[in-house]
Parts: sequence; structure tokens; C-alpha cells
Amino acid sequence: MIKKYLFLFIITAFVINCSNPVESPQQPNDPLSLWNSGEVKTAISEFVSRVTDENSTDFVPAEERIAVFDNDGTLWNEKPLYIPVEYEINHIKNSFPSKPDWKDNKLYKGLAEGDLSVMKEYSTFELIHELFAAHDGQKEEEYKVEVYNFLSNNNHPEFNRPFKKMTYSPMVELLDYLHANNFQVYIVTGGEITFVRTVSEEIYNIPPENVIGSSVKLKYVSDDTGNYLVRTGDINSANDKHVKPTNIELHIGQKPIFAAGNSDGDYEMMEYTVEGDGPSMAILVHHDDEEREYAYIHGTEKAVKDAKQKGWYVVSMKDDFKEIFGE
Amino acid sequence: MIKKYLFLFIITAFVINCSNPVESPQQPNDPLSLWNSGEVKTAISEFVSRVTDENSTDFVPAEERIAVFDNDGTLWNEKPLYIPVEYEINHIKNSFPSKPDWKDNKLYKGLAEGDLSVMKEYSTFELIHELFAAHDGQKEEEYKVEVYNFLSNNNHPEFNRPFKKMTYSPMVELLDYLHANNFQVYIVTGGEITFVRTVSEEIYNIPPENVIGSSVKLKYVSDDTGNYLVRTGDINSANDKHVKPTNIELHIGQKPIFAAGNSDGDYEMMEYTVEGDGPSMAILVHHDDEEREYAYIHGTEKAVKDAKQKGWYVVSMKDDFKEIFGE
Repeated sequence: MIKKYLFLFIITAFVINCSNPVESPQQPNDPLSLWNSGEVKTAISEFVSRVTDENSTDFVPAEERIAVFDNDGTLWNEKPLYIPVEYEINHIKNSFPSKPDWKDNKLYKGLAEGDLSVMKEYSTFELIHELFAAHDGQKEEEYKVEVYNFLSNNNHPEFNRPFKKMTYSPMVELLDYLHANNFQVYIVTGGEITFVRTVSEEIYNIPPENVIGSSVKLKYVSDDTGNYLVRTGDINSANDKHVKPTNIELHIGQKPIFAAGNSDGDYEMMEYTVEGDGPSMAILVHHDDEEREYAYIHGTEKAVKDAKQKGWYVVSMKDDFKEIFGE
Repeated sequence: MIKKYLFLFIITAFVINCSNPVESPQQPNDPLSLWNSGEVKTAISEFVSRVTDENSTDFVPAEERIAVFDNDGTLWNEKPLYIPVEYEINHIKNSFPSKPDWKDNKLYKGLAEGDLSVMKEYSTFELIHELFAAHDGQKEEEYKVEVYNFLSNNNHPEFNRPFKKMTYSPMVELLDYLHANNFQVYIVTGGEITFVRTVSEEIYNIPPENVIGSSVKLKYVSDDTGNYLVRTGDINSANDKHVKPTNIELHIGQKPIFAAGNSDGDYEMMEYTVEGDGPSMAILVHHDDEEREYAYIHGTEKAVKDAKQKGWYVVSMKDDFKEIFGE
């Protein structure tokens, strides 16, 4: 009799083990634990619930659950300088001695000598062009190594941590939350595409093919040493403002249903994402935390002004984020 | 005693069931059942085994198992005309009556009147430019619908099946085989990117974001009717020859380890894929089956000539394919 019960017990234990993982009686951990309770956190949770619930009229199949995130100022810090610009200054300083023809380039000379004010004489597009052109002729694979080493081994000037650790932990948690809900998450950055790809998997769990950014034209070279790609000084795409939706279509081929940005450079991407009748959501990360990071609105005036009318949620870093950078 | 053996038997059965799916005593189905035995089939099987075997020195992690396939002539038929060209002729014929300004365009006028020989007066690049420009001002979403309907509702002139069913079943089986072995499979086509994306999921199980192709510049428009993308007549990229490796880097950011092409337009993509010391493989689909499809070498002379020296495998459609189009 004891044997019989033992038998049933063991069989039952195996059957349970086989068919269903044992459900924990505890509540699951808060997937947005680094976000303070409030309108934005609630709205994100409700949106994700709606689009992932097969019984909801707002259900969206996983393959159409496209989410797009700006990078500079949205996923990681962008002050006092954009991190990509910090890198370019470093690259120009290091390369200047071996580039005699750079002596006549006012920008390169100024930056090599530590005069950042020289940048003010250039429009954003001119600046991007000049900085990208400082890699003309560099092998793509060498550029990757240089960028990765820079981001890993150089600290932010005011925070005692490497640039690649300047990510906003609540935003990284949001990426994880969307991944866990089978969103296809993309970075859509004004930064250079290969630059961001060198660390995207490590810091965001986003593979290189899911990074969309500004780019230069590449050149395919076949010579005695092999077949490889070389960077040129010609801009292929400056991925900002109205260009972002066009590059989303080029790389993804579908309209996103979720967008996160932090500046007027993300305006069109957010506007495009919430277009139409289907479920969609956009959040605008607002830098209003002078104590823990920075407070500024320059370059974001239009987006902040129009957010309410557009139906975008404004994330207050001060009020909505429990922490900024995490450990 | 009988009970005890029964007990042990049942427990054992459950343990086996839980820990290992029961291995079938039969051989597993041949994953390349539509390929005849031979050097190419063996080489593909061995390559896939090597890169997926964690104990092999040639093991490649799934996220780096990038495979790239040309489309026209590699995955589907390209004769007597490229299917994308068939579509453009159809589009021009249908649009011509409502486009009075097209009357002065020799190409559009000729094609609308059924004179295909007019195409011979244009270089490939000029032809692409003119054909793409026939969509200047068309909404991207309307273009998608038009393309999909064309590919679904129009038959190939010589085979009694819609264009979207003109895929080579052994090649589709190869895509499935690579997918089953956790390859990241991409189409890298000279055809227009959105054009191929309209059917890629349906006919190849390849999602739109994994299609790379030629493209026009898109324009983001905000007006009374909404926010949307419009096609322009400016070529963004003509994805052929030396451009293919650069677009692979732009869209994927990693070098592939497997490439399949069928023409000199795929030469650099194949060369780039097999570059370096890591495991890699390239196959060249050779159209030598006059009976079941077509036999031609025009446009593939250089690739066929260099294949052996480059280490590429030449697929004889006549000898290696058990069937061409399948059901």
C-alpha cells in the first residue's frame, strides 16, 4: 500500500514536471522596477499588455511589434558632448601627428589642439561630414576595434565611468521588458551606425543588424592583402529628423508601433510611429534632472511643445526614473 | 514482483521522456531531399554540420551564422525577363494613359506599346533609374499593394504559374535547412528592396527586415491626410557587384559565412563571404537545364570561370536539383 502511494506520488511528480513548469505562487518581479509609479509607467505597461494579449482588439503579432529607440540622450548620456563627438575628437587628436595634410583643416587642427569652440563655426551637417571624413580610407574592421576600445577605456568627463556605461538603466530595463514581450527592438540613431553596433549587443542586448544610424559610403577593395571594406568621406545617410522614417523603411520595411526619443531630431520618427488607427505609443525622454544628470531643453523645444497634442508621453527623468545610470 | 518491474518500467519511461525526446530509430528525413546526391549536396551538409557542432573547431555561434542569397536567378527564375522588369513593364503599361508627360519618354512609350527592344538602348544603370523613376511620387504603401497583386495574379509567360511561385524548390529547401540550423538568412538582391519584401515571408519564410536590395530615396511627407512615405525617382542604391558587400555591412554589420549567387553580379558578395580563415562556403547556381528551365551563361562568365580557383561550388540545376519548381 505504501509502495502504491509512493508510486502514484512519483508518477504525479514526473507528470507535473513534464507538462507544466511549476508556477511560482509569488508575484512576478516588476519588469519596470527602476521606474517610479506614475502615468508613464502605467501607460507603458498597459500598452504592452494590450498589444501582447491575443484576446485584445489591439493585439499585434510579434513580427509586427517593432519598437524604435533613439540613442544619444534617449538610451545613453549626450552631455556635455555627444559621445560620438567625444570619440571623433579623440580620434583626430591621436591621428593628427601622422596626417600632415590635416594641418590645413581648421576643424581638425583646432580639435587636435583642444579648442572645442572651433566646432561652432560648422553647421551640424558640415560637422558630421568633416568628422566622418576623418576616417576616409580607414578599414571598417580597424574602425570597429578603435571605437570599441575608446568606448570601453575612456571615462565620461564628469561621471567616473566608461562611456559605454553611460546608459540609462531604466531605459535598458525598458528594452529588456520589450524583448521579453517579443518586440523587435531597433536603435535608430543620428550616431554613426557601425559606432553604435560595436557595443549595442553588450550594453543593450541589441544585435548589430538591429542598429540603424548615420553612415558613410563604404568601398569594397580587392588587393594583394585580401577583400575588405574601407570607409570613405562621403556621407551615405545623415539619420536625423525626416530621414529617420525613411531609414526605418529601408532597414525594417514596417512601421513601428513604439518609439522613444528625446529631441526634435526624433520628432518625425515619433510622429510616423503613432500615425494611423492601430495601437501605437511614443515616449519623449525629458532631461530635467540637474542633480543626477543634466537639465536642458535646447534642441527639444518643438517636441516638448507638441507632445500633448501628438499623444506622446513625456518621461521626466527626475520623477519617472528611480535611478539614472545604475551600477 | 510484477508490480515492481512495472513501476521501474514506467518510471524509466517517464525519465527518458522528460530528459531526452525519444530518438526515432528511423533515419531523420533528408533535409535536402530535393537535391541529388553529389559533391555539392555533401559539401553543404558537411559545412552546416561543422559550423553547428559545438565540438568542432569550425563552430560558429548562431548570431554569426549569416547566410546571404541573391534572388533573381538564384532563388527564383529570371528568364526570359527579370521578374522585377516584368512588373515594371506592367506598371508602365497600366499607368501610361494617365501620365501625359510620359509621352516624351522613349522607354516608357516603347514599353507601353509592347516594344521590349527599346530597353536595349539603355545601360543597366540607366534602365534601373528609368524604371524606378516610374514610381516617383507613389506612396510606398500603395506600391507594396500593387507589387504584391502583380506577383500573385500574373503568370510567367512560359510556365503556367504566378510569378511568386517561380521559386526553385531545392533552393527554398536549402533556406529551410539553414533556418532549422539557426542561420540568419538574408536576401541580397539587385531587385528593388520593397518589391522583394512584399512576398519574402510568404515564399521564403524570410521577414522583410532580412531583405537587402536596390532602393530609391524615400521622402517623408506630413500633410492633411497624414504622415507617410513617398517614393522618389532618385536611386539610393543599385545593389549589384561591389555594392553588395557594402550593403551587407550597412544592413547586417557582419561578414556572412555562406553565400549563394548565380551571376557575375554576385561575384564580390561570394568573394567577400569566403574571405579570411574562418569557415565559409559559397555556391553558384548554374543554369544548365534547358529541358526543365533554361540554359545560359551570359552574365555569369567570370564567376563560372573563377569558381574553382575561388573555392566556390557550382550547382548544376540539371544534375543537382531533383526538381526545379516543385508543386
